[in-house]
Amino acid sequence: MTEFELIYKLINTQTVQRADVVTGIGDDCAILSVPEGYSLAVSMDTLVKGVHFPDSASAYCIGYKALAVNLSDLAAAGAIPAWVSLSLTLPVADVDWITEFVRGVFELAERYQVQLIGGDTCSGPLAVTIQAHGFVKKPLLRSTASPGDLIYVSAVLGDAALGLRSYQGDTHIAQSCIKKFNQPEPRIELGLWLAQHATACIDISDGLISDLGHICSQSQCGAEIMLNKIPLSAEFMDYYHNQPDYQTALSFGDDYELCFCVNKNAAKEVEVYSHQSGLALSCIGQISTADSLSFVDQNNKTVTFNEKGFEHFK
Amino acid sequence: MTEFELIYKLINTQTVQRADVVTGIGDDCAILSVPEGYSLAVSMDTLVKGVHFPDSASAYCIGYKALAVNLSDLAAAGAIPAWVSLSLTLPVADVDWITEFVRGVFELAERYQVQLIGGDTCSGPLAVTIQAHGFVKKPLLRSTASPGDLIYVSAVLGDAALGLRSYQGDTHIAQSCIKKFNQPEPRIELGLWLAQHATACIDISDGLISDLGHICSQSQCGAEIMLNKIPLSAEFMDYYHNQPDYQTALSFGDDYELCFCVNKNAAKEVEVYSHQSGLALSCIGQISTADSLSFVDQNNKTVTFNEKGFEHFK
Repeated sequence: MTEFELIYKLINTQTVQRADVVTGIGDDCAILSVPEGYSLAVSMDTLVKGVHFPDSASAYCIGYKALAVNLSDLAAAGAIPAWVSLSLTLPVADVDWITEFVRGVFELAERYQVQLIGGDTCSGPLAVTIQAHGFVKKPLLRSTASPGDLIYVSAVLGDAALGLRSYQGDTHIAQSCIKKFNQPEPRIELGLWLAQHATACIDISDGLISDLGHICSQSQCGAEIMLNKIPLSAEFMDYYHNQPDYQTALSFGDDYELCFCVNKNAAKEVEVYSHQSGLALSCIGQISTADSLSFVDQNNKTVTFNEKGFEHFK
Repeated sequence: MTEFELIYKLINTQTVQRADVVTGIGDDCAILSVPEGYSLAVSMDTLVKGVHFPDSASAYCIGYKALAVNLSDLAAAGAIPAWVSLSLTLPVADVDWITEFVRGVFELAERYQVQLIGGDTCSGPLAVTIQAHGFVKKPLLRSTASPGDLIYVSAVLGDAALGLRSYQGDTHIAQSCIKKFNQPEPRIELGLWLAQHATACIDISDGLISDLGHICSQSQCGAEIMLNKIPLSAEFMDYYHNQPDYQTALSFGDDYELCFCVNKNAAKEVEVYSHQSGLALSCIGQISTADSLSFVDQNNKTVTFNEKGFEHFK
């Protein structure tokens, strides 16, 4: 199979065909129309074998996750997903592997009507880079939180951390945690709602301590988080026999939930949206005038954590 | 040095600050404005150590070339360069290496007023993915050549192939060839001119046989190329003692020159543009009604080549 045959194979299984793609795969550039009145939101993320996914991860999961983590960035900006470019570096052109990989990408792409518009395939150590493009009128930023804002996170934290452990030989991991690690759900609908209601937003890819830390530093404020408000799954609690490891839940990352801030007066609206959408949204604390992030336990005692979040280079 | 310090280091040496970048590096997404009346042209290319550049290539050259090959795709579409995203995968966070890499990227970026708007850094085997964004009103395509059109290439072919040999221990390679391999010149100005004058265009990254082959297959036509019209440098001719290796010149790739087609009546305009711009533009043949590409020598005898172009997976 030649490189070009590989590319054609990728193209032909795609069902999404958007009207705003003037020229898609097959030319030097894709040519695209951004709808009037919208800005373009773009994000790029790379997944490397052995770093972002275990050596034994399935091609389907790698494809799904590579797209999901990029769509999660669009969600954090409150953008409507539109197009993706994909660069796939592969040690060998294994048709079965590529077929499964593409199935993972296109399954999620179809759900959000995202079209693959180009990219690159080359030989080398297994890695996937995706650039996602979306449209946004009023983007959600990290730099616009204010003291007094309430801080929320979606769903639960820490399940992805446990999910990875199943690849490391731990046989006590719940299927839901493995799925959370393999196939995180980009919070696109939530992001679109937040674009109208939130003051700041970030996706939790590197862990809450690190990512909320970005909101704080870029908004020049602090935050006080109540540990007992951190949403944890029943599976996470069970794993730790009801003595949860907050360090893991708050610093491992890979959750791809949204952490967002809203004006105090918007608490009721968040509650109603959470109820209507069926997505848990937990208020975990408040933006402060301090210069950093602090955590308190149920006795209002400050708790410190050694690990801040995932770092590639220490 | 942490991952974030690395990223900040990248940001701070950038001088280009474009008005159409609403939010650049430092948020989940970059937020960008495409000017009214223009489409967006996007292209993504990955360079992998040992595949696209030799193990001993300098960080400066890797940075320069990674951007150049992407700008070359914009040139082939006739687009005005605007923004790039960069994903850099590094085995270790070597500050000196990164400083030099960034110097290579930003030197070229500044020349074309291209702003780095985001991306990713991670640990892993050395690889660089860049996505380039540009603006275009009437894009140049591969699929729009017609029988009778004249076929041109810019500058010379084959020098980059020789350039690589200097890394393989050949001490007889001219500096100009090494430079052509390390720092190809994206033909942006030519592309912008061609957007008004050419019928089809492609950049020669995989070799003329392969890339002109794309124009032929996508335009559903053939091409007849006169070997003695292929532009070769004095250095290339010297290396081969005036018996040039056309196989190398036509199939190695990495030249990043433009191959374009124009209506027969436009030959004079091409000549004038070439003269005014100082960039050699050679007419090498004509689009035909045949179903493939053919090469003839000075005696009008057909010549065939075994290698079509660079392929990652054979």
